[in-house]
Amino acid sequence: MAKLYHVPLSPFCRKVRLSLAEKKIECELIEERYWEKDADFLRRNPAAKVPVLRIDGKIMAESAAICEYLEEIHPEPPLMPRSAENRYEVRRLVGWFDDKFHHEVTSKLLYERVNKKVMGKGYPDSSNVKSGAKAIKYHLDYMAWLLDHRRWLAGDSMTLADFAAAAHLSALDYISDVDWNRSATVKDWYAKIKSRPAFRSILADQIGGFPPPAHYADLDF
Amino acid sequence: MAKLYHVPLSPFCRKVRLSLAEKKIECELIEERYWEKDADFLRRNPAAKVPVLRIDGKIMAESAAICEYLEEIHPEPPLMPRSAENRYEVRRLVGWFDDKFHHEVTSKLLYERVNKKVMGKGYPDSSNVKSGAKAIKYHLDYMAWLLDHRRWLAGDSMTLADFAAAAHLSALDYISDVDWNRSATVKDWYAKIKSRPAFRSILADQIGGFPPPAHYADLDF
Repeated sequence: MAKLYHVPLSPFCRKVRLSLAEKKIECELIEERYWEKDADFLRRNPAAKVPVLRIDGKIMAESAAICEYLEEIHPEPPLMPRSAENRYEVRRLVGWFDDKFHHEVTSKLLYERVNKKVMGKGYPDSSNVKSGAKAIKYHLDYMAWLLDHRRWLAGDSMTLADFAAAAHLSALDYISDVDWNRSATVKDWYAKIKSRPAFRSILADQIGGFPPPAHYADLDF
Repeated sequence: MAKLYHVPLSPFCRKVRLSLAEKKIECELIEERYWEKDADFLRRNPAAKVPVLRIDGKIMAESAAICEYLEEIHPEPPLMPRSAENRYEVRRLVGWFDDKFHHEVTSKLLYERVNKKVMGKGYPDSSNVKSGAKAIKYHLDYMAWLLDHRRWLAGDSMTLADFAAAAHLSALDYISDVDWNRSATVKDWYAKIKSRPAFRSILADQIGGFPPPAHYADLDF
């Protein structure tokens, strides 16, 4: 069976977990305290990051590369559209969330509030938290604008772009940092994706010292 | 004709320029002072970053997504291998350079020494420069290790992984921040890639206030 070395709230790990689950690839989840730089883990991935996936006798790192690989070897159900133009749009949005959203929002809220404590790196920097709380509004508005024109973020079908976005938002929702009242369109989109069987394991996550709010796992939030 | 909005030393722009040139897609280069957030430019790309490519009647952002698109519509000559496993390795390495190398090296050296000055953001932070100068050694050693086992970074053929790496290293070489004596293997690899016709426009770049060192454009450096 495949093995995924991960941390529960990492959006990059969550994106891979969603892809694996949607494609019904059985996978054992192993929590990895990657910041402790255990020698075994460094052998698995010299980049010292999660996710790391052990599959088909290979060890893989970099979530975007992993998801493209899963798509190529397990094309059903598809998480990428057919045309080059639509595939571009999926990849652009995966980049948007994993790079821009991550830098402006996730790293400013989740990393300050949770990772710093878990890793023993001190207290949240309030100017970072403030900047993340401001930036998420702009991103939610951008998502609402996209979803006003499309059924899913990158077009008419659910793709890796939706998983990338949902991976970040679900991790932030775990610490109540998403204002679902800001946009009914975005809330509807999240309700749709949250109710998929592939999302169950993510909604069941529990981080020691950080109990999730009641609405986190509630499909009718 | 296609148009690429870029800045000359941006590794992300250089990667796209190399792909375009290798595939012989004619493209006009337009310098974009993206940090001034000109309204026209923001309309082209709400992420306010370069590169932005205008091609086939579309406007595209995110260098990784652009390169995959170019590969899909102009498959010859190929910059991605055929097998899913080898394609994974290319994408992993593109991620390695554009994320890890960029964060640990390029942003610590190039951005401190050049971008800050060009953007009027003050003087280099010497602790960042020190940290970048230390980290590049480890990355050159990792490249040497890969190239001891392979002809090109991701395997037996030249791919986007080589372009991603060469894009970062060439920008750093412009400010003499690459010690080519550290590894003969890496130097040989760079000499090979530097001598390709696709590299010519990059070797001809001139940044006002930052003349390149003599070895920068020298194929026999």
